[in-house]
Amino acid sequence: MPSPIAKITAELFGTFWLVFGGCGTAIFAAKEVAVGDDTGTRIQVGVGYLGVALAFGLTVVTMAYALGHISGGHFNPAITLGACVGGRTPWRDLPGYWVAQIVGGLLAGLALWGIASGKPGWSREGNMAANGYAEHSPGNYTLVAVIVAEILLTAFFLIVVLGATDVRAPKGMGALAIGLALTLIHLISIPISNTSVNPARSTGVAFFNGNGAPGQLWVFWVAPLVGGIIGGLLYPLLFEDGRFKFAPVQNTV
Amino acid sequence: MPSPIAKITAELFGTFWLVFGGCGTAIFAAKEVAVGDDTGTRIQVGVGYLGVALAFGLTVVTMAYALGHISGGHFNPAITLGACVGGRTPWRDLPGYWVAQIVGGLLAGLALWGIASGKPGWSREGNMAANGYAEHSPGNYTLVAVIVAEILLTAFFLIVVLGATDVRAPKGMGALAIGLALTLIHLISIPISNTSVNPARSTGVAFFNGNGAPGQLWVFWVAPLVGGIIGGLLYPLLFEDGRFKFAPVQNTV
Amino acid sequence: MPSPIAKITAELFGTFWLVFGGCGTAIFAAKEVAVGDDTGTRIQVGVGYLGVALAFGLTVVTMAYALGHISGGHFNPAITLGACVGGRTPWRDLPGYWVAQIVGGLLAGLALWGIASGKPGWSREGNMAANGYAEHSPGNYTLVAVIVAEILLTAFFLIVVLGATDVRAPKGMGALAIGLALTLIHLISIPISNTSVNPARSTGVAFFNGNGAPGQLWVFWVAPLVGGIIGGLLYPLLFEDGRFKFAPVQNTV
Amino acid sequence: MPSPIAKITAELFGTFWLVFGGCGTAIFAAKEVAVGDDTGTRIQVGVGYLGVALAFGLTVVTMAYALGHISGGHFNPAITLGACVGGRTPWRDLPGYWVAQIVGGLLAGLALWGIASGKPGWSREGNMAANGYAEHSPGNYTLVAVIVAEILLTAFFLIVVLGATDVRAPKGMGALAIGLALTLIHLISIPISNTSVNPARSTGVAFFNGNGAPGQLWVFWVAPLVGGIIGGLLYPLLFEDGRFKFAPVQNTV
Repeated sequence: MPSPIAKITAELFGTFWLVFGGCGTAIFAAKEVAVGDDTGTRIQVGVGYLGVALAFGLTVVTMAYALGHISGGHFNPAITLGACVGGRTPWRDLPGYWVAQIVGGLLAGLALWGIASGKPGWSREGNMAANGYAEHSPGNYTLVAVIVAEILLTAFFLIVVLGATDVRAPKGMGALAIGLALTLIHLISIPISNTSVNPARSTGVAFFNGNGAPGQLWVFWVAPLVGGIIGGLLYPLLFEDGRFKFAPVQNTV
Repeated sequence: MPSPIAKITAELFGTFWLVFGGCGTAIFAAKEVAVGDDTGTRIQVGVGYLGVALAFGLTVVTMAYALGHISGGHFNPAITLGACVGGRTPWRDLPGYWVAQIVGGLLAGLALWGIASGKPGWSREGNMAANGYAEHSPGNYTLVAVIVAEILLTAFFLIVVLGATDVRAPKGMGALAIGLALTLIHLISIPISNTSVNPARSTGVAFFNGNGAPGQLWVFWVAPLVGGIIGGLLYPLLFEDGRFKFAPVQNTV
Repeated sequence: MPSPIAKITAELFGTFWLVFGGCGTAIFAAKEVAVGDDTGTRIQVGVGYLGVALAFGLTVVTMAYALGHISGGHFNPAITLGACVGGRTPWRDLPGYWVAQIVGGLLAGLALWGIASGKPGWSREGNMAANGYAEHSPGNYTLVAVIVAEILLTAFFLIVVLGATDVRAPKGMGALAIGLALTLIHLISIPISNTSVNPARSTGVAFFNGNGAPGQLWVFWVAPLVGGIIGGLLYPLLFEDGRFKFAPVQNTV
Repeated sequence: MPSPIAKITAELFGTFWLVFGGCGTAIFAAKEVAVGDDTGTRIQVGVGYLGVALAFGLTVVTMAYALGHISGGHFNPAITLGACVGGRTPWRDLPGYWVAQIVGGLLAGLALWGIASGKPGWSREGNMAANGYAEHSPGNYTLVAVIVAEILLTAFFLIVVLGATDVRAPKGMGALAIGLALTLIHLISIPISNTSVNPARSTGVAFFNGNGAPGQLWVFWVAPLVGGIIGGLLYPLLFEDGRFKFAPVQNTV
């Protein structure tokens, strides 16, 4: 049984990796342009929203296989809350996990700011992959649309988390399914809210980003947590005959 | 053994996720344009057909790992029909599965319409990722080409479904193989028919899309169901020595 | 033990799927252009070489999980030859496998031609994803460069095939590793030769493509087969202590 | 137990494949331009940074499944060092592994040069996918930014390597997690340093590339090795209760 310190450290490292890798891809690599072969055409060589979606998912796939056996591999306050609601994680773990996730996210934001500042002419204002609605949504989606999307996507995320780590599901595939669910969620919703479903991810970059992001941050706490609660309630009610089964936390991946 | 209600609910949630995630990526994220780094060039940051193909596949990968142990993870009337024909799913399950799949698809269409309406200037007419032929095919493919492609692709889809969940196949990899088959099918055929192989997916968005889609919807019932029957017959005839083996439905993933 | 007829049928279906899915993606979906969101910019929504590479790999991932337990999932005369050389497949299986692979490839070429003809204005001449060198290489690579690349890539492909299905390798992951190897090979070499490493794939479309492809087809038999022999010799010599171990054919995935 | 010669040969082949496949995709396929369908627009059909990132990862996924049971599948001097530090690989293996990795990388550089020279008009100067900082960084990132990014990414890479092959992690998924970690690392950092995290990869192409790369090569030895040591220390300290557990080398995948 991993020690409480090991579990909290794993959540800190995992959330650092999620924010550093996912937001880092958005910051460093999404929109690079180069001159194409054999011609003067300027083309997109950057990875676009597809690469960002893949990066977020792979942070979870890689760290959940690496550290899931320590902490369960949440890396996300909404997952921890939903896993507590769903009876998979003891409530006493929640405060430590949340603190570790927030600290990990903020350290990642700091590291991203430091490295990105090494590019001549780069400024952090509005360029730190923050989440947002209305004029700060990539596609200018309204607050209501953003809230609906974030709640719905986080609720389904929790159903995937709880379902893919159910004792009846195939062994060893949970980390892959959960990480790819995060990729899918980004494929759908980067244009809507820049995709949060994870308050620690939003918090980690909001203050570095500035440009209105801190003032909109509440949305990316409220909506994912509400979604997490909904998913955490629905899975056991619908698919475990209403029995909220406690399972050891390492079953989360 | 999951209850009949749990199985039907799982099919409803899974089909909702398939239509919401796959069509949602097409609606929200396929064609986004942004100004590239360091230059005024306008570039594609949207996920294109590749991202849409990946999204459809990942809806199945994620939900089949999450809920496959409940319902078998069909999320598609053509798979349910083919699985009944192939002896994997009892015929008495078919009506409930079909209703759940259609309702799940329609609810997803409704949710997509609601969220997309939160983007200023967006109109649902022709923008809901409907399937179509001739002037409603992305590449203007004829009705005959669309029917041939949809039958052929659905038949092979069923062979992958029945083969990858055969007791002789590697354990635990069925959901991955089946989901990636759906990605592959979209890579091939988005330009032909916008890819259906799933009547519930087509039905879920056709009426919201309007613009001729409801009048062409029959094609995306007939062709996938014919393909499903063909695949459901071929696999046991060719690869199970003609013995139609009944296997518990949860073996479908 | 699957019957000889089932094994040959599996190779025919699998090779059909490989050529239909891989070349089909190249033909139908690689270069689609659309008008981007909110602007008149014409953008690439097609799947490009990346999508084609993914499609080829996924044909193998999906069919090797579906039918690998029947035939071993070769779908490629060079793999069958290398597997015979490496002691994994009995030599008596080779003639039937090769015939099935060629027939499956040609039927796929026929199906692709039929469906693609349903697009107004499409002509098969030079548009059937044929392999080629010099003026028929996408990047105008010379005959020597194409031969070196095809031999080297096929030899490494065989090392992956024989290594990932070695009894010492992780169980159940062979089909994934082998399919993703084919994706990788395409990522590297589509600009060089349009990527063959598979004589049945090249034969399946060469005659429909015309435009010089039939006259260059010999290269895409000689180079992959030479590569297959090299890989089939190297793996047991280097990594099985020189013992050519016979393993049941279904171990190939 | 594989012989020492087999282990060294496996590292040589694997590192060849990593450099040939990853850098080869960058050299041959990243920036291809073609005329789009139905229009004169010149579009990106090349695989971009996303395809290069995928290619690097798939070299590891494929070879680690194929040869991981022989050598542990390092293919990278920084992983070998970190695995020795972390107690997973005996120190006596390090010199032979490093020599094999460097030789494999250089042979891959030679093969890439040979094949690329088969394209009319191609010149190796600056076109061999070398790593670099400042004016040789794709995005002109400073030396400090490059060093910080390479150390941090290699340290996390080692945590994934040691964690995903921990006896407590799911069996058989290590190669997938580690390869996808390399994809993720490239998604983040190609614009920063062209991504090394692997001294053998940098060495393999630097001298063929010229154009300042040999003079900057020291960075791509120092930073990845420092990162490897950090990761190799952190994982056992934080997640194995400070016990540096020796595990057989084949457990690395």
